[in-house]
Amino acid sequence: MTTAHTSPPWRHWRHVVKLDPARQITDEVVQAIAASGTDAVFLGGTQDITYENTNTLLGRLRRHAPQLPLWQEVSASDAVVDGVDGYCIPIVLNTTDPHWLIGAHAQAIEKFGPWIDWSKVLVEGYLVLNPDAAVAQLTGANTALTPQAAASYAAAAEALFSMPVLYVEYSGTFGDPALLAEVARTARRAHIFYGGGIDSYEKAATMAQHADTLIIGNALYTANWQQVLHDTIRAVK
Amino acid sequence: MTTAHTSPPWRHWRHVVKLDPARQITDEVVQAIAASGTDAVFLGGTQDITYENTNTLLGRLRRHAPQLPLWQEVSASDAVVDGVDGYCIPIVLNTTDPHWLIGAHAQAIEKFGPWIDWSKVLVEGYLVLNPDAAVAQLTGANTALTPQAAASYAAAAEALFSMPVLYVEYSGTFGDPALLAEVARTARRAHIFYGGGIDSYEKAATMAQHADTLIIGNALYTANWQQVLHDTIRAVK
Repeated sequence: MTTAHTSPPWRHWRHVVKLDPARQITDEVVQAIAASGTDAVFLGGTQDITYENTNTLLGRLRRHAPQLPLWQEVSASDAVVDGVDGYCIPIVLNTTDPHWLIGAHAQAIEKFGPWIDWSKVLVEGYLVLNPDAAVAQLTGANTALTPQAAASYAAAAEALFSMPVLYVEYSGTFGDPALLAEVARTARRAHIFYGGGIDSYEKAATMAQHADTLIIGNALYTANWQQVLHDTIRAVK
Repeated sequence: MTTAHTSPPWRHWRHVVKLDPARQITDEVVQAIAASGTDAVFLGGTQDITYENTNTLLGRLRRHAPQLPLWQEVSASDAVVDGVDGYCIPIVLNTTDPHWLIGAHAQAIEKFGPWIDWSKVLVEGYLVLNPDAAVAQLTGANTALTPQAAASYAAAAEALFSMPVLYVEYSGTFGDPALLAEVARTARRAHIFYGGGIDSYEKAATMAQHADTLIIGNALYTANWQQVLHDTIRAVK
Protein backbone atom coordinates (compact mmCIF):
# COMPACT_ATOMS: atom_id res chain seq x y z
CA MET A 1 0.00 0.00 0.00
CA THR A 2 1.39 3.37 -0.99
CA THR A 3 0.32 6.88 -0.23
CA ALA A 4 1.29 8.15 -3.67
CA HIS A 5 -2.34 8.74 -4.57
CA THR A 6 -2.67 11.34 -1.81
CA SER A 7 0.39 13.27 -2.93
CA PRO A 8 -0.23 16.01 -5.51
CA PRO A 9 1.01 15.20 -9.01
CA TRP A 10 3.64 17.94 -9.13
CA ARG A 11 5.46 16.31 -6.22
CA HIS A 12 6.54 13.61 -8.69
CA TRP A 13 7.66 15.85 -11.51
CA ARG A 14 11.37 15.83 -12.26
CA HIS A 15 11.29 17.49 -15.68
CA VAL A 16 8.85 20.10 -16.94
CA VAL A 17 8.75 21.90 -20.28
CA LYS A 18 7.62 25.51 -20.27
CA LEU A 19 6.15 26.80 -23.50
CA ASP A 20 5.43 30.46 -24.14
CA PRO A 21 2.10 31.07 -25.88
CA ALA A 22 3.52 34.26 -27.42
CA ARG A 23 6.31 32.38 -29.22
CA GLN A 24 6.18 30.18 -32.31
CA ILE A 25 6.83 26.47 -32.04
CA THR A 26 6.45 23.78 -34.73
CA ASP A 27 4.33 20.65 -34.53
CA GLU A 28 7.55 18.68 -34.80
CA VAL A 29 8.79 20.11 -31.50
CA VAL A 30 5.42 19.66 -29.81
CA GLN A 31 5.32 16.01 -30.88
CA ALA A 32 8.86 15.46 -29.67
CA ILE A 33 7.96 16.96 -26.29
CA ALA A 34 4.99 14.60 -26.07
CA ALA A 35 7.26 11.61 -26.71
CA SER A 36 10.20 12.83 -24.65
CA GLY A 37 9.30 11.54 -21.22
CA THR A 38 8.87 14.98 -19.70
CA ASP A 39 6.44 15.03 -16.78
CA ALA A 40 4.31 18.06 -17.62
CA VAL A 41 4.05 21.17 -19.76
CA PHE A 42 3.57 24.65 -18.38
CA LEU A 43 1.98 27.26 -20.60
CA GLY A 44 3.25 30.63 -19.57
CA GLY A 45 5.39 33.66 -20.25
CA THR A 46 5.87 37.24 -19.26
CA GLN A 47 4.97 39.33 -22.29
CA ASP A 48 2.07 39.39 -24.76
CA ILE A 49 0.24 36.48 -23.14
CA THR A 50 -3.42 36.45 -24.14
CA TYR A 51 -6.40 34.17 -23.84
CA GLU A 52 -6.22 33.53 -27.59
CA ASN A 53 -2.58 32.54 -27.88
CA THR A 54 -2.77 30.45 -24.70
CA ASN A 55 -5.88 28.64 -25.89
CA THR A 56 -4.35 28.01 -29.32
CA LEU A 57 -1.22 26.50 -27.81
CA LEU A 58 -3.34 24.44 -25.40
CA GLY A 59 -5.35 23.03 -28.30
CA ARG A 60 -2.20 22.00 -30.16
CA LEU A 61 -0.79 20.36 -27.04
CA ARG A 62 -4.02 18.50 -26.34
CA ARG A 63 -3.97 17.18 -29.92
CA HIS A 64 -0.31 16.15 -30.03
CA ALA A 65 0.29 15.32 -26.36
CA PRO A 66 -3.03 14.03 -25.02
CA GLN A 67 -1.39 12.18 -22.12
CA LEU A 68 0.73 15.03 -20.78
CA PRO A 69 -0.39 17.09 -17.78
CA LEU A 70 -0.86 20.66 -19.02
CA TRP A 71 -0.75 23.48 -16.52
CA GLN A 72 -1.18 27.17 -17.11
CA GLU A 73 1.15 29.49 -15.28
CA VAL A 74 -1.06 32.52 -14.83
CA SER A 75 0.53 35.90 -15.49
CA ALA A 76 -2.60 37.81 -16.49
CA SER A 77 -6.02 37.01 -15.14
CA ASP A 78 -7.74 37.75 -18.48
CA ALA A 79 -5.62 35.07 -20.19
CA VAL A 80 -6.89 32.24 -17.98
CA VAL A 81 -8.16 29.34 -20.10
CA ASP A 82 -10.36 26.33 -19.38
CA GLY A 83 -9.32 22.78 -19.92
CA VAL A 84 -5.90 22.71 -18.31
CA ASP A 85 -5.08 20.26 -15.54
CA GLY A 86 -4.09 22.98 -13.14
CA TYR A 87 -3.00 26.55 -12.61
CA CYS A 88 0.32 27.72 -11.25
CA ILE A 89 0.04 31.05 -9.46
CA PRO A 90 3.36 32.88 -9.17
CA ILE A 91 4.11 35.01 -6.11
CA VAL A 92 7.33 37.00 -6.54
CA LEU A 93 9.02 36.84 -3.15
CA ASN A 94 11.83 39.27 -3.95
CA THR A 95 9.82 41.91 -5.78
CA THR A 96 9.99 45.57 -4.77
CA ASP A 97 6.31 46.00 -5.63
CA PRO A 98 3.60 44.29 -3.54
CA HIS A 99 1.49 44.07 -6.69
CA TRP A 100 3.48 40.91 -7.54
CA LEU A 101 3.25 39.49 -4.04
CA ILE A 102 -0.47 39.91 -3.39
CA GLY A 103 -1.91 42.97 -5.16
CA ALA A 104 -2.52 41.45 -8.58
CA HIS A 105 -3.84 38.31 -6.94
CA ALA A 106 -6.28 40.20 -4.73
CA GLN A 107 -7.53 42.12 -7.78
CA ALA A 108 -8.03 38.88 -9.72
CA ILE A 109 -9.87 37.35 -6.77
CA GLU A 110 -12.10 40.41 -6.48
CA LYS A 111 -13.01 40.00 -10.15
CA PHE A 112 -13.13 36.22 -10.58
CA GLY A 113 -13.17 34.85 -7.01
CA PRO A 114 -16.31 32.73 -7.16
CA TRP A 115 -15.16 31.03 -10.38
CA ILE A 116 -11.75 29.96 -9.13
CA ASP A 117 -11.37 26.23 -8.49
CA TRP A 118 -8.78 26.34 -5.72
CA SER A 119 -8.32 22.59 -5.81
CA LYS A 120 -6.55 23.09 -9.16
CA VAL A 121 -4.24 25.85 -7.95
CA LEU A 122 -0.56 25.48 -7.15
CA VAL A 123 1.06 28.48 -5.47
CA GLU A 124 4.68 29.07 -6.46
CA GLY A 125 6.96 31.30 -4.41
CA TYR A 126 9.32 32.75 -7.00
CA LEU A 127 12.82 34.01 -6.53
CA VAL A 128 13.52 35.98 -9.71
CA LEU A 129 17.29 36.19 -10.03
CA ASN A 130 18.37 37.20 -13.53
CA PRO A 131 18.31 41.02 -13.60
CA ASP A 132 18.19 41.05 -17.41
CA ALA A 133 15.09 38.89 -17.69
CA ALA A 134 11.79 40.50 -18.66
CA VAL A 135 10.16 39.10 -15.52
CA ALA A 136 12.80 40.72 -13.30
CA GLN A 137 12.28 44.08 -14.93
CA LEU A 138 8.50 43.83 -14.90
CA THR A 139 8.34 42.91 -11.23
CA GLY A 140 11.25 45.08 -10.03
CA ALA A 141 12.86 42.03 -8.50
CA ASN A 142 15.76 42.54 -6.14
CA THR A 143 18.02 40.07 -7.89
CA ALA A 144 21.21 40.89 -5.97
CA LEU A 145 20.70 38.24 -3.30
CA THR A 146 23.38 36.23 -1.55
CA PRO A 147 22.65 32.51 -1.18
CA GLN A 148 21.81 33.22 2.48
CA ALA A 149 19.41 36.05 1.64
CA ALA A 150 17.70 33.91 -1.01
CA ALA A 151 17.36 31.07 1.47
CA SER A 152 15.86 33.45 4.01
CA TYR A 153 13.17 34.45 1.53
CA ALA A 154 12.54 30.77 0.97
CA ALA A 155 12.31 30.12 4.71
CA ALA A 156 9.93 33.04 5.15
CA ALA A 157 7.77 31.83 2.27
CA GLU A 158 7.57 28.42 3.86
CA ALA A 159 7.16 29.41 7.49
CA LEU A 160 4.89 32.42 7.07
CA PHE A 161 3.07 31.64 3.82
CA SER A 162 3.11 27.80 3.87
CA MET A 163 4.22 27.83 0.24
CA PRO A 164 4.26 24.35 -1.27
CA VAL A 165 6.68 25.24 -4.08
CA LEU A 166 9.71 27.50 -4.25
CA TYR A 167 10.76 28.42 -7.77
CA VAL A 168 14.35 29.55 -8.28
CA GLU A 169 14.13 31.38 -11.59
CA TYR A 170 17.12 32.54 -13.62
CA SER A 171 15.12 32.69 -16.86
CA GLY A 172 17.50 33.27 -19.78
CA THR A 173 20.72 32.45 -17.95
CA PHE A 174 22.23 29.58 -16.01
CA GLY A 175 22.06 30.29 -12.30
CA ASP A 176 24.29 29.89 -9.28
CA PRO A 177 24.23 26.25 -8.11
CA ALA A 178 25.42 27.37 -4.66
CA LEU A 179 22.39 29.63 -4.26
CA LEU A 180 20.03 26.87 -5.36
CA ALA A 181 21.75 24.46 -2.97
CA GLU A 182 21.31 26.86 -0.07
CA VAL A 183 17.61 27.37 -0.84
CA ALA A 184 17.11 23.59 -1.08
CA ARG A 185 19.01 22.99 2.15
CA THR A 186 16.88 25.57 3.98
CA ALA A 187 13.51 24.37 2.69
CA ARG A 188 11.84 21.85 4.92
CA ARG A 189 8.72 20.72 3.11
CA ALA A 190 8.62 22.90 0.02
CA HIS A 191 9.22 21.38 -3.37
CA ILE A 192 11.95 23.14 -5.37
CA PHE A 193 11.56 24.17 -9.02
CA TYR A 194 14.60 25.40 -10.89
CA GLY A 195 14.47 27.22 -14.23
CA GLY A 196 17.08 29.06 -16.27
CA GLY A 197 19.70 28.23 -18.86
CA ILE A 198 19.31 24.46 -18.82
CA ASP A 199 20.49 23.39 -22.28
CA SER A 200 22.81 20.43 -21.66
CA TYR A 201 23.19 17.21 -19.75
CA GLU A 202 25.81 18.75 -17.46
CA LYS A 203 23.76 21.80 -16.52
CA ALA A 204 20.67 19.69 -15.92
CA ALA A 205 22.64 17.23 -13.79
CA THR A 206 24.17 20.06 -11.76
CA MET A 207 20.87 21.70 -10.91
CA ALA A 208 19.02 18.39 -10.46
CA GLN A 209 21.28 17.67 -7.49
CA HIS A 210 19.44 20.43 -5.63
CA ALA A 211 16.10 21.01 -7.35
CA ASP A 212 13.21 18.56 -7.28
CA THR A 213 12.02 19.68 -10.69
CA LEU A 214 13.86 21.27 -13.61
CA ILE A 215 11.97 23.59 -15.93
CA ILE A 216 13.23 23.65 -19.52
CA GLY A 217 12.09 26.63 -21.55
CA ASN A 218 14.13 28.88 -23.82
CA ALA A 219 16.47 26.13 -25.05
CA LEU A 220 13.55 24.47 -26.81
CA TYR A 221 13.26 27.54 -29.02
CA THR A 222 16.77 27.06 -30.41
CA ALA A 223 18.04 24.93 -33.29
CA ASN A 224 19.45 22.58 -30.69
CA TRP A 225 16.05 21.68 -29.19
CA GLN A 226 16.22 17.96 -29.97
CA GLN A 227 19.51 17.48 -28.19
CA VAL A 228 18.35 19.62 -25.25
CA LEU A 229 15.21 17.56 -24.79
CA HIS A 230 17.08 14.26 -24.98
CA ASP A 231 19.97 15.25 -22.71
CA THR A 232 17.98 17.02 -20.00
CA ILE A 233 15.54 14.13 -19.68
CA ARG A 234 18.44 11.73 -19.44
CA ALA A 235 20.02 13.83 -16.69
CA VAL A 236 17.01 13.66 -14.37
CA LYS A 237 15.51 10.23 -15.09
CA MET B 1 -14.28 13.15 23.75
CA THR B 2 -13.54 16.54 22.30
CA THR B 3 -10.96 17.72 19.85
CA ALA B 4 -10.41 20.99 21.67
CA HIS B 5 -6.93 19.93 22.74
CA THR B 6 -5.78 19.77 19.10
CA SER B 7 -7.03 23.25 18.32
CA PRO B 8 -4.55 26.09 18.92
CA PRO B 9 -5.33 28.24 21.98
CA TRP B 10 -6.00 31.43 20.00
CA ARG B 11 -8.93 29.75 18.27
CA HIS B 12 -10.79 30.06 21.57
CA TRP B 13 -9.97 33.66 22.34
CA ARG B 14 -12.87 36.08 22.24
CA HIS B 15 -11.25 39.02 24.04
CA VAL B 16 -7.61 40.03 24.03
CA VAL B 17 -5.92 43.00 25.69
CA LYS B 18 -3.04 44.61 23.82
CA LEU B 19 -0.52 46.48 25.96
CA ASP B 20 2.16 48.72 24.50
CA PRO B 21 5.56 48.30 26.17
CA ALA B 22 6.42 51.91 25.32
CA ARG B 23 3.45 53.27 27.30
CA GLN B 24 2.97 53.58 31.04
CA ILE B 25 0.39 51.50 32.84
CA THR B 26 -0.23 51.17 36.58
CA ASP B 27 -0.22 47.97 38.62
CA GLU B 28 -3.86 48.64 39.35
CA VAL B 29 -4.75 48.31 35.66
CA VAL B 30 -2.54 45.25 35.22
CA GLN B 31 -4.23 43.56 38.18
CA ALA B 32 -7.67 44.45 36.86
CA ILE B 33 -6.77 42.95 33.46
CA ALA B 34 -5.63 39.76 35.20
CA ALA B 35 -8.98 39.50 36.99
CA SER B 36 -11.14 40.67 34.10
CA GLY B 37 -11.75 37.43 32.26
CA THR B 38 -9.85 38.46 29.15
CA ASP B 39 -8.38 35.51 27.26
CA ALA B 40 -4.86 36.71 26.60
CA VAL B 41 -2.56 39.72 26.58
CA PHE B 42 -0.55 40.82 23.57
CA LEU B 43 2.59 42.85 24.17
CA GLY B 44 3.17 45.06 21.18
CA GLY B 45 3.16 48.44 19.59
CA THR B 46 4.53 50.36 16.65
CA GLN B 47 6.97 52.90 18.05
CA ASP B 48 9.86 52.77 20.53
CA ILE B 49 9.47 49.07 21.24
CA THR B 50 12.66 47.64 22.75
CA TYR B 51 13.81 44.44 24.37
CA GLU B 52 14.05 46.29 27.70
CA ASN B 53 10.59 47.81 27.82
CA THR B 54 9.00 44.60 26.51
CA ASN B 55 10.81 42.47 29.05
CA THR B 56 9.88 44.86 31.88
CA LEU B 57 6.21 44.75 30.95
CA LEU B 58 6.36 40.97 30.60
CA GLY B 59 7.81 40.66 34.10
CA ARG B 60 5.03 42.77 35.58
CA LEU B 61 2.38 40.74 33.75
CA ARG B 62 3.91 37.46 34.88
CA ARG B 63 3.83 38.71 38.46
CA HIS B 64 0.31 40.12 38.47
CA ALA B 65 -1.32 37.84 35.89
CA PRO B 66 0.43 34.49 36.19
CA GLN B 67 -2.47 32.57 34.62
CA LEU B 68 -2.94 34.70 31.53
CA PRO B 69 -1.49 33.67 28.15
CA LEU B 70 1.05 36.34 27.21
CA TRP B 71 2.01 36.70 23.57
CA GLN B 72 4.46 39.10 22.02
CA GLU B 73 3.45 40.75 18.79
CA VAL B 74 6.80 41.17 17.12
CA SER B 75 7.44 44.48 15.41
CA ALA B 76 11.24 44.56 15.70
CA SER B 77 13.37 41.44 15.74
CA ASP B 78 15.81 42.88 18.29
CA ALA B 79 12.97 43.34 20.79
CA VAL B 80 12.04 39.64 20.90
CA VAL B 81 11.92 38.37 24.49
CA ASP B 82 11.98 34.92 26.05
CA GLY B 83 9.31 33.59 28.31
CA VAL B 84 6.16 34.46 26.42
CA ASP B 85 3.64 31.82 25.45
CA GLY B 86 3.84 32.67 21.79
CA TYR B 87 4.75 35.16 19.13
CA CYS B 88 2.39 36.91 16.74
CA ILE B 89 4.09 37.80 13.47
CA PRO B 90 2.30 40.56 11.55
CA ILE B 91 2.23 40.53 7.75
CA VAL B 92 0.75 43.74 6.35
CA LEU B 93 -1.37 42.61 3.41
CA ASN B 94 -2.20 46.09 2.14
CA THR B 95 1.21 47.70 2.48
CA THR B 96 2.86 49.47 -0.45
CA ASP B 97 6.27 48.24 0.69
CA PRO B 98 7.16 44.52 0.50
CA HIS B 99 9.37 45.04 3.55
CA TRP B 100 6.21 44.64 5.65
CA LEU B 101 4.95 41.65 3.71
CA ILE B 102 8.11 39.54 3.65
CA GLY B 103 11.29 41.64 3.59
CA ALA B 104 11.62 42.33 7.32
CA HIS B 105 10.70 38.73 8.04
CA ALA B 106 13.30 37.33 5.65
CA GLN B 107 15.93 39.58 7.25
CA ALA B 108 14.97 38.41 10.74
CA ILE B 109 15.09 34.80 9.60
CA GLU B 110 18.51 35.32 8.05
CA LYS B 111 19.74 36.68 11.39
CA PHE B 112 17.89 34.51 13.90
CA GLY B 113 16.51 31.60 11.84
CA PRO B 114 17.96 28.67 13.79
CA TRP B 115 16.71 30.10 17.10
CA ILE B 116 13.10 30.57 16.06
CA ASP B 117 10.64 28.11 17.60
CA TRP B 118 8.05 27.98 14.83
CA SER B 119 5.66 25.98 16.97
CA LYS B 120 5.14 29.13 19.02
CA VAL B 121 4.50 31.40 16.04
CA LEU B 122 1.12 32.71 14.91
CA VAL B 123 1.10 34.47 11.55
CA GLU B 124 -1.36 37.37 11.32
CA GLY B 125 -2.42 38.79 7.97
CA TYR B 126 -3.09 42.45 8.77
CA LEU B 127 -5.37 44.85 7.01
CA VAL B 128 -4.27 48.26 8.29
CA LEU B 129 -7.19 50.61 7.72
CA ASN B 130 -6.85 53.81 9.73
CA PRO B 131 -4.73 56.19 7.61
CA ASP B 132 -3.89 58.31 10.66
CA ALA B 133 -2.46 55.46 12.72
CA ALA B 134 1.30 55.23 13.18
CA VAL B 135 1.28 51.70 11.79
CA ALA B 136 -0.43 52.85 8.59
CA GLN B 137 2.12 55.59 8.06
CA LEU B 138 5.08 53.37 8.91
CA THR B 139 4.00 50.61 6.53
CA GLY B 140 2.58 52.83 3.79
CA ALA B 141 -0.69 50.97 4.00
CA ASN B 142 -3.23 51.49 1.25
CA THR B 143 -6.10 52.19 3.64
CA ALA B 144 -8.65 53.31 1.04
CA LEU B 145 -10.17 49.89 0.52
CA THR B 146 -13.78 49.08 -0.25
CA PRO B 147 -15.24 46.17 1.72
CA GLN B 148 -14.89 44.06 -1.45
CA ALA B 149 -11.24 45.00 -1.94
CA ALA B 150 -10.49 44.28 1.72
CA ALA B 151 -12.22 40.92 1.43
CA SER B 152 -10.18 40.14 -1.68
CA TYR B 153 -6.96 40.70 0.24
CA ALA B 154 -8.34 38.41 2.91
CA ALA B 155 -9.20 35.75 0.34
CA ALA B 156 -5.75 36.02 -1.24
CA ALA B 157 -4.08 35.75 2.17
CA GLU B 158 -6.05 32.63 2.89
CA ALA B 159 -5.88 30.95 -0.49
CA LEU B 160 -2.33 31.83 -1.45
CA PHE B 161 -0.61 32.21 1.93
CA SER B 162 -2.73 29.85 4.09
CA MET B 163 -2.95 32.52 6.75
CA PRO B 164 -4.57 31.25 9.94
CA VAL B 165 -5.53 34.71 11.21
CA LEU B 166 -6.78 37.84 9.49
CA TYR B 167 -6.45 40.98 11.57
CA VAL B 168 -8.69 43.91 10.66
CA GLU B 169 -6.89 46.81 12.30
CA TYR B 170 -8.33 50.31 12.70
CA SER B 171 -5.99 51.17 15.56
CA GLY B 172 -7.07 54.47 17.12
CA THR B 173 -10.48 54.66 15.52
CA PHE B 174 -13.65 52.60 15.33
CA GLY B 175 -13.84 50.82 11.98
CA ASP B 176 -16.46 50.05 9.39
CA PRO B 177 -18.62 47.11 10.53
CA ALA B 178 -19.65 46.47 6.92
CA LEU B 179 -16.01 46.00 5.88
CA LEU B 180 -15.36 43.66 8.78
CA ALA B 181 -18.52 41.73 7.93
CA GLU B 182 -17.42 41.32 4.33
CA VAL B 183 -13.97 40.08 5.34
CA ALA B 184 -15.55 37.61 7.78
CA ARG B 185 -18.04 36.43 5.18
CA THR B 186 -15.25 35.82 2.66
CA ALA B 187 -12.89 34.00 5.02
CA ARG B 188 -13.30 30.26 4.98
CA ARG B 189 -11.01 28.90 7.67
CA ALA B 190 -9.16 31.96 8.91
CA HIS B 191 -9.84 33.29 12.39
CA ILE B 192 -10.73 37.00 12.46
CA PHE B 193 -9.17 39.50 14.85
CA TYR B 194 -10.62 42.98 15.08
CA GLY B 195 -8.91 45.92 16.72
CA GLY B 196 -9.65 49.63 16.82
CA GLY B 197 -11.75 52.02 18.85
CA ILE B 198 -13.49 49.46 21.05
CA ASP B 199 -14.36 51.39 24.21
CA SER B 200 -17.96 50.47 24.98
CA TYR B 201 -20.37 47.60 25.21
CA GLU B 202 -22.13 48.65 22.02
CA LYS B 203 -19.01 48.90 19.92
CA ALA B 204 -17.73 45.58 21.22
CA ALA B 205 -21.06 43.90 20.55
CA THR B 206 -21.20 45.32 17.01
CA MET B 207 -17.77 44.08 16.01
CA ALA B 208 -18.12 40.78 17.91
CA GLN B 209 -20.91 39.85 15.52
CA HIS B 210 -18.28 39.50 12.79
CA ALA B 211 -14.90 39.05 14.47
CA ASP B 212 -13.87 35.93 16.36
CA THR B 213 -11.63 37.93 18.68
CA LEU B 214 -11.72 41.57 19.75
CA ILE B 215 -8.48 43.30 20.63
CA ILE B 216 -8.78 46.07 23.22
CA GLY B 217 -5.86 48.47 23.37
CA ASN B 218 -5.89 52.24 23.52
CA ALA B 219 -9.05 52.50 25.60
CA LEU B 220 -7.21 50.91 28.52
CA TYR B 221 -4.89 53.92 28.60
CA THR B 222 -7.76 56.30 29.32
CA ALA B 223 -9.40 57.32 32.60
CA ASN B 224 -12.32 55.14 31.58
CA TRP B 225 -10.30 51.89 31.56
CA GLN B 226 -12.30 50.11 34.27
CA GLN B 227 -15.60 50.57 32.49
CA VAL B 228 -14.06 49.61 29.13
CA LEU B 229 -12.68 46.38 30.54
CA HIS B 230 -15.94 45.46 32.23
CA ASP B 231 -18.21 46.34 29.31
CA THR B 232 -16.16 44.81 26.51
CA ILE B 233 -15.77 41.53 28.36
CA ARG B 234 -19.49 41.46 29.00
CA ALA B 235 -20.19 42.05 25.30
CA VAL B 236 -18.27 38.99 24.12
CA LYS B 237 -18.73 36.46 26.92
